Amino acid sequence: MVSETLRRQVEALHTRYVRVIDDDQIEEWPKLFTETCLYRIATRENHAQGLPLAVMECRSRRMMEDRVTGLRRINVYEPQRYVHQISALEIEPAGEGRLKCRSNFLVIRTLSDGAMSVFSAGVYLDTVVVESGAALFEERVVVQDSRRVDTLVVIPL
Amino acid sequence: MVSETLRRQVEALHTRYVRVIDDDQIEEWPKLFTETCLYRIATRENHAQGLPLAVMECRSRRMMEDRVTGLRRINVYEPQRYVHQISALEIEPAGEGRLKCRSNFLVIRTLSDGAMSVFSAGVYLDTVVVESGAALFEERVVVQDSRRVDTLVVIPL
Amino acid sequence: MVSETLRRQVEALHTRYVRVIDDDQIEEWPKLFTETCLYRIATRENHAQGLPLAVMECRSRRMMEDRVTGLRRINVYEPQRYVHQISALEIEPAGEGRLKCRSNFLVIRTLSDGAMSVFSAGVYLDTVVVESGAALFEERVVVQDSRRVDTLVVIPL
Repeated sequence: MVSETLRRQVEALHTRYVRVIDDDQIEEWPKLFTETCLYRIATRENHAQGLPLAVMECRSRRMMEDRVTGLRRINVYEPQRYVHQISALEIEPAGEGRLKCRSNFLVIRTLSDGAMSVFSAGVYLDTVVVESGAALFEERVVVQDSRRVDTLVVIPL
Repeated sequence: MVSETLRRQVEALHTRYVRVIDDDQIEEWPKLFTETCLYRIATRENHAQGLPLAVMECRSRRMMEDRVTGLRRINVYEPQRYVHQISALEIEPAGEGRLKCRSNFLVIRTLSDGAMSVFSAGVYLDTVVVESGAALFEERVVVQDSRRVDTLVVIPL
Repeated sequence: MVSETLRRQVEALHTRYVRVIDDDQIEEWPKLFTETCLYRIATRENHAQGLPLAVMECRSRRMMEDRVTGLRRINVYEPQRYVHQISALEIEPAGEGRLKCRSNFLVIRTLSDGAMSVFSAGVYLDTVVVESGAALFEERVVVQDSRRVDTLVVIPL
């Protein structure tokens, strides 16, 4: 069991993550991660088989910032928006100030013509560190259920 | 940061809101708001541009009660039901006993023939006041992602 | 109002429930219930009218275990996976160490070809008991909005 204070910090990190993506503040997204980190989107199949193929992968905050610059250049926020739902957050102490977290996510996507659909659903597998009072992701592996979605992902999930 | 007690009161208000709508206790809906209040449904586009157009707007508890009376007259609960999901609740103190809240919502609608679909998704932007131990909405602005939904909204989101 | 400790135990039970189903650890599912229990899936219509018809019904942990054995035999996890979202959890003390809980659920189903859809949405009506520090379901009645889903349910919701 983790303390209430720690739990609230982790919840706040999850909430912040959702806000920066859904509210188009994507420049804030890398700041939720440690300098050296892992952000990875994989399908359930790839993840289960330990395959190196990923839909998206960044190994540092710097790579994430580059990704954001790229996103802004192609102006993806015009044609699509996400709304996230997060549920069933589990937090386990993992030693050395680290926490292992799991949660279910669901992303509803709205296109510019107004069409809404279930775009992605799956599990976040996280390693969170708490440094000087603030929680950051050291690792976020997004395991999505469907392999269909691969080519459609532009914005991080 | 708000206190745990306050957070639980705000969460309870959000939960109550979902229950009264999803469980067809719509007469209880206005009671979750202060006498003078704002309930407004806008599309993301309208909201971002500050346009006065709203899908639905009530400026007092009384107007909300009138809305409920109207709903009962046309008996909308027969053909459709909502199931809400709420996530990523942020609560910030805003002075004078007020709290600013944001959360993501998702509404699944089921029609009488059994068809289920993503009906609406977006953000609740709230001002909550705590009066004599109970939390009430002073303002709830529902910003939905899609403009398509306008003409379909009858029950409050 | 229930204590924070009790609330966290109930939340943890809900989270565990989601994990064992979504992560294909279905053998753990009956362990979240008391020996004598009720697990029942009904449509909103049937539930409202008090009809005995249920989509699925188990009256003991033993029956649930049999159900799991059956599921493994037909190997249902190959063609479909669930992702749950849970929201708006209400907890009320009900005397004699029991708690009455309500929450909204949403299940996104992914088929083996990658198609994702809203599979089921509705309300969990639970009786939870806390025995020697652990929370267990004595009763979980799943009331789903749509009657369409009946014949499609194989894995518990």
